[in-house]
Amino acid sequence: MTHPRTGLWFIGARGGVAATATLGLLALEQGHAGHWQTSDGPVRKVPPARDQVGLVTAIPQFAALDFVPWRNLVVGGHDVRACHIADAALTLVHNGAIKLSLVDEFMDSLNQIESNIELGALFNSGQAIERLAAVEPTRRTARETVESIKRDLRSFARDEELERVVVVNLASTEPPTDVADLPERWEELEKLLDANGCPLRASSLYAIAALDLGMPYINFTPSLGASLPAIEELAVLRGTCHAGQDGKTGETLLKSVLAPMFAARNLEVMSWVGHNIFGNLDGLVLNDPANKAAKMQSKDQLVGQILGYDPQTLVSIEYIRSLGDWKTAWDHIHFRGFLGTPMTLQFTWQGCDSLLAAPLVLDLVRFVELSHRLGEVGVLSHLGSFFKQPLGLAEHDFSRQFSLLCDWAERHASPQSRRS
Amino acid sequence: MTHPRTGLWFIGARGGVAATATLGLLALEQGHAGHWQTSDGPVRKVPPARDQVGLVTAIPQFAALDFVPWRNLVVGGHDVRACHIADAALTLVHNGAIKLSLVDEFMDSLNQIESNIELGALFNSGQAIERLAAVEPTRRTARETVESIKRDLRSFARDEELERVVVVNLASTEPPTDVADLPERWEELEKLLDANGCPLRASSLYAIAALDLGMPYINFTPSLGASLPAIEELAVLRGTCHAGQDGKTGETLLKSVLAPMFAARNLEVMSWVGHNIFGNLDGLVLNDPANKAAKMQSKDQLVGQILGYDPQTLVSIEYIRSLGDWKTAWDHIHFRGFLGTPMTLQFTWQGCDSLLAAPLVLDLVRFVELSHRLGEVGVLSHLGSFFKQPLGLAEHDFSRQFSLLCDWAERHASPQSRRS
Amino acid sequence: MTHPRTGLWFIGARGGVAATATLGLLALEQGHAGHWQTSDGPVRKVPPARDQVGLVTAIPQFAALDFVPWRNLVVGGHDVRACHIADAALTLVHNGAIKLSLVDEFMDSLNQIESNIELGALFNSGQAIERLAAVEPTRRTARETVESIKRDLRSFARDEELERVVVVNLASTEPPTDVADLPERWEELEKLLDANGCPLRASSLYAIAALDLGMPYINFTPSLGASLPAIEELAVLRGTCHAGQDGKTGETLLKSVLAPMFAARNLEVMSWVGHNIFGNLDGLVLNDPANKAAKMQSKDQLVGQILGYDPQTLVSIEYIRSLGDWKTAWDHIHFRGFLGTPMTLQFTWQGCDSLLAAPLVLDLVRFVELSHRLGEVGVLSHLGSFFKQPLGLAEHDFSRQFSLLCDWAERHASPQSRRS
Amino acid sequence: MTHPRTGLWFIGARGGVAATATLGLLALEQGHAGHWQTSDGPVRKVPPARDQVGLVTAIPQFAALDFVPWRNLVVGGHDVRACHIADAALTLVHNGAIKLSLVDEFMDSLNQIESNIELGALFNSGQAIERLAAVEPTRRTARETVESIKRDLRSFARDEELERVVVVNLASTEPPTDVADLPERWEELEKLLDANGCPLRASSLYAIAALDLGMPYINFTPSLGASLPAIEELAVLRGTCHAGQDGKTGETLLKSVLAPMFAARNLEVMSWVGHNIFGNLDGLVLNDPANKAAKMQSKDQLVGQILGYDPQTLVSIEYIRSLGDWKTAWDHIHFRGFLGTPMTLQFTWQGCDSLLAAPLVLDLVRFVELSHRLGEVGVLSHLGSFFKQPLGLAEHDFSRQFSLLCDWAERHASPQSRRS
Repeated sequence: MTHPRTGLWFIGARGGVAATATLGLLALEQGHAGHWQTSDGPVRKVPPARDQVGLVTAIPQFAALDFVPWRNLVVGGHDVRACHIADAALTLVHNGAIKLSLVDEFMDSLNQIESNIELGALFNSGQAIERLAAVEPTRRTARETVESIKRDLRSFARDEELERVVVVNLASTEPPTDVADLPERWEELEKLLDANGCPLRASSLYAIAALDLGMPYINFTPSLGASLPAIEELAVLRGTCHAGQDGKTGETLLKSVLAPMFAARNLEVMSWVGHNIFGNLDGLVLNDPANKAAKMQSKDQLVGQILGYDPQTLVSIEYIRSLGDWKTAWDHIHFRGFLGTPMTLQFTWQGCDSLLAAPLVLDLVRFVELSHRLGEVGVLSHLGSFFKQPLGLAEHDFSRQFSLLCDWAERHASPQSRRS
Repeated sequence: MTHPRTGLWFIGARGGVAATATLGLLALEQGHAGHWQTSDGPVRKVPPARDQVGLVTAIPQFAALDFVPWRNLVVGGHDVRACHIADAALTLVHNGAIKLSLVDEFMDSLNQIESNIELGALFNSGQAIERLAAVEPTRRTARETVESIKRDLRSFARDEELERVVVVNLASTEPPTDVADLPERWEELEKLLDANGCPLRASSLYAIAALDLGMPYINFTPSLGASLPAIEELAVLRGTCHAGQDGKTGETLLKSVLAPMFAARNLEVMSWVGHNIFGNLDGLVLNDPANKAAKMQSKDQLVGQILGYDPQTLVSIEYIRSLGDWKTAWDHIHFRGFLGTPMTLQFTWQGCDSLLAAPLVLDLVRFVELSHRLGEVGVLSHLGSFFKQPLGLAEHDFSRQFSLLCDWAERHASPQSRRS
Repeated sequence: MTHPRTGLWFIGARGGVAATATLGLLALEQGHAGHWQTSDGPVRKVPPARDQVGLVTAIPQFAALDFVPWRNLVVGGHDVRACHIADAALTLVHNGAIKLSLVDEFMDSLNQIESNIELGALFNSGQAIERLAAVEPTRRTARETVESIKRDLRSFARDEELERVVVVNLASTEPPTDVADLPERWEELEKLLDANGCPLRASSLYAIAALDLGMPYINFTPSLGASLPAIEELAVLRGTCHAGQDGKTGETLLKSVLAPMFAARNLEVMSWVGHNIFGNLDGLVLNDPANKAAKMQSKDQLVGQILGYDPQTLVSIEYIRSLGDWKTAWDHIHFRGFLGTPMTLQFTWQGCDSLLAAPLVLDLVRFVELSHRLGEVGVLSHLGSFFKQPLGLAEHDFSRQFSLLCDWAERHASPQSRRS
Repeated sequence: MTHPRTGLWFIGARGGVAATATLGLLALEQGHAGHWQTSDGPVRKVPPARDQVGLVTAIPQFAALDFVPWRNLVVGGHDVRACHIADAALTLVHNGAIKLSLVDEFMDSLNQIESNIELGALFNSGQAIERLAAVEPTRRTARETVESIKRDLRSFARDEELERVVVVNLASTEPPTDVADLPERWEELEKLLDANGCPLRASSLYAIAALDLGMPYINFTPSLGASLPAIEELAVLRGTCHAGQDGKTGETLLKSVLAPMFAARNLEVMSWVGHNIFGNLDGLVLNDPANKAAKMQSKDQLVGQILGYDPQTLVSIEYIRSLGDWKTAWDHIHFRGFLGTPMTLQFTWQGCDSLLAAPLVLDLVRFVELSHRLGEVGVLSHLGSFFKQPLGLAEHDFSRQFSLLCDWAERHASPQSRRS
């Protein structure tokens, strides 16, 4: 199978995750991501696949999948801010997360990608996001907003001669959407697009625009996006696929790995407290209580689901400026062992948020592009291991989610495929 | 199926794990393990199975297995020390690990069990263990020692009218045995029992005695025990089964849960440091470098096996008197993310060693008794999730080990079975 | 100097701290506090003063002070709840913090002390405290409430033939009092006692009652108590002394020890995050945002005062039921070293709150009793090392505060004194 | 007072600490150390003194001291390795500890300083150091070695027209020297310099060379250096001063800050465990058991000295390559509170070793230069707060040590002095 050119459209294209994913993609095309010189010698000697540290698609289990090569991917996107994609990258340099030389090397490519970034839309996006934006909240209707997004997506596909465009939501977290009164069918929801006071937020309008054009859509954020029966129906009607929701990168990943251990050993979790501190733009937006609510909900539900009962849980996310992109999480798990004796597990996770998220974004794009190429339609539930709130999957245990992915990969192995 | 009386023979019967398992068994027979009054109210309201916190055999996945009821189990054992089984229990009370009232309540039963405990044998056991012992290192040959052990086991079975005796090694860790020159066949090894300077240590002689009598054997320690081709052959020859080796209770359990996450996410583990401190009798024995060697080896190999490459690892176990049975482990995992950026995960595990081990011992007895009853012969590899060095299983990923156990359970479900 | 009988009047006498202080006092009278049998042998061999672990007054620096002997102290108090003083002690037993045998041994004494506990007063105490109380919020005026408290204090002194009564506030934290419009002089404030809508809360009425009777007063809580110019004047007018405010027992103690290190080494603290979780009654009351406000303010100010600039700080206190009296604090200090490089210090403090506070209460009673006996009047600023918000002292550095106490002790050494 | 040119002679001039101190000095001369752009804005706005983060001499308490200006300092040194001073700086860049641009900017100056670095001497230095060296172990006598060092020091002083040279030992830690049979008087010790098998090691020969020339000497390492009565006498005979030993930068600093808190609160420390992991050259040398012994001794003694009794202590230092210069220490302090209840404090310190040490080296040079200029002779005990094993001071409590320094500063304040 030859691979056509594929577009990668980032909503929030100038944010930290998108900038890191873009920079990483450029480095992967050159074949030298991961060449970080360490104290143990000039360049690490590791098996080839290890050059792609952090990429799930690079592990042996997925070697037989016919992924689109890195060099066939073209980046574009929307952003409501007026800065440059390199700004986010430089912030990561200042945070000590990536090297200046990496940004320097790809400055020309970043400038070129900038020309593919359009000004995004605010629509019920909430004050925290509006404060960051270079645009005014729109006075357009939801439908007009959707149509404007579609125009940008079509132009991108046409100008760059793309066979396929994967749209990824990487924008800041919106406040929760009140979905109680939203209709379950697309034909009903569609009517709301013309109504005054349409309750949908921007993330869902982006999802509608992409899916309505038959483009696959990935929601890497806690915002609502396509996570609504009516929009899921739209995807099926248009014969396209989507995945989500909210990338599982750090503390929640650990929860989905550790909670099954307590369940398997029948150790009773009495309380699970998680405190997260970090200082990037995401953190600033989450510092607004309305936006934080969406995130907390996404982080806090899986422990009870895995255990089968509800221990007392507490999750906090706080904006601590000095930490920049380094998210530090402290979790305190208080559990009861045999004969009722209380014991404790604590962990501290110090990870660079954008660098944990970006490779997963690239992995998801490859998986979703492949599914779309293979004709899969609707929610891609086999991608649940990537998400805090896996769409179409009632399983939060990471190892079981990962087994589902491996099973899918076995079924879709392409014997003749070569790794890109 | 009615359940006959089953003997439970602990080697190291007066140690902390055996004492806790014994006490726990007594409580389970009364149906009130886990009734630990907490600050949140008189008695916790939880589903019935939750009364058996810490018991793997009590979780829903194993509800259809026809386990021997607790009340059918009878405890006996060997110990080289001359103390009382209640002493170890009282030490746990002093450590704040269990309540005095629990020991008080079952004092009569403990006294009765004491009468089933015979003085054990020292045989190449090493200085650290010899220092603790009330007996002199034996001058008997290996064969005489084996015969003496057999006499005790037969008496126990006869006096208590037992259909079956499961022998469990819970004794202090021996120094490593040099297995390089040991023969692979039982008929060859057997000849060594009469030789001067037989290199086997006590743990293997106990294993030989049990298996030769057709009794199932469990090795919960890092000592060699039955982990030798010739002894494994003996088990098959006698039509019995065995499992081991070295119970996976705390830090290593976490390693087997966390390392697969790093592998699945292709995050490169550069170094994994684990420091363990604790102050019980086991710790005192492990403070001897010869004995520590066996333990370290058992704790340190699985990370590389799971990851598929060998990061720098460091494991220490130190005896800190004040901690008593509370083993505290600090692990520092230094890993590399996308674009080569180093990140860190640290955890601190504060668990009561005997209370983590004891329920697993009871679980293993139930599983092994059932396998024996079902006629399974040789190494029980489906029990690998219980062990640091799973015999017959080249898999260290806890969730995959646990899946194997669940699969076995499904195959052996007894629809009409009721939980004891 | 012979020592007369001294009363020790606890406001909040049935709470965890008061119960522990009472139980500890009973044990000290018997001379056997601290005889906790450990795994390292029957009874610890330590220098005599070490029997009094946790008592500041027992260290060599204060050996020459003529403290009142433990056996001369008589306990009484107020509480708004209708439970028994032993209930709080039993909760600590359930939490694994103290041994049941200790409560058993002194049950008769506790019953006797119960007869000295009167029902306390609610007065602007806030909903969280009112929910716990066995009494209705009073309809009496502030003056009537003060007079009622005085009657109880006088009865106690008379019935128990006490030369002196030290009143200690150990009650749950009230919401902050709005002190903006309160007069600075006692003669003005006193008039408010008869007014409708007197803004003072119960803690201040207790302080007024005690000081007006010439009794020394200690405020171990963040509630306002005597921390008002007009009430401080009252103490001086009546020739008595007082100390406060808010006992410094755990996380804040560490802050006052660590922050000076960063200052002395010119390491720039960029952010200091502290998360506290615990599950005792105090925690339940602090879970109410109004009450929490008072506590947070008390915990969060000293870092900036010690450093001389204001890093970003965050303090949270959350109620986690399962922890009971075990307060766990995680602090994350992000600082900048030479050439601007960011570094990190994290600590986890796992302490039993009542057991940390109770000896300090007994220490303060001894120090304050001595000051009163010596004729000291007004705020006892040399006791600042005991408090999060030291009255009369603009110094938060623990070691400097402690030096002030040692200096005071040197000036008041009683050469002929013998340690009680 | 005008300031003459002062030499700064580093033994181990191409190591991490010396390279960082050199680079920092160059930056300070330019007035822009600490301009590390962070996520919180272009350049931090802080009081002037804050540009010098990490420098003790820059805090207000020492503002009135007439320190030599940075620009008057000239760097030279010895090293047994044949690399370039910039190599160590680049390793720190690779570790993410300093920025490449800083090294780039001062490359010319570093090259010039390289021309002041002479090949050092091995003398009983032990195998771990010999393995690193570009020179063969000397066959010269101790006296010949001393004379050779003196020649280098005199040339440096003459060529650079220096009024004064401060010699600082920053070389890798030697194995402990057996001092039992060494004479107490200089005239006796001097005779040993000509003997075959002189037991002194290189660090002491350097100290003798410097002091014999009247140059002040600072021992920032655990090696013996001048810490011998006979060599201390030499300093007095030659009218010069010296300070040491072993810079207190991280974990031990915290011990000297935290242990006094436990003492003041009479909380009984039962055990204090400290595990240190790091991966720089120092770590590699300390990985040799002989060299580690010297370091461990230095880190482990002060807890008992401060507490007045000896809890069980354990200190480990392990070489973990991936950590580079980032020393991570985990300390676990198990202590007993009131009524004997065990509690726990844990801390994790993640600091960049060279960046913690380097400013202290510059501080010490300034303090020692000033003392020498003021005519102080012998051990400078007021500098004890800088050292793990403070010479001439039996006090390990950091805050008391620091008070001594402040007192000294007050006595030597130079009212007319301006800060450099």
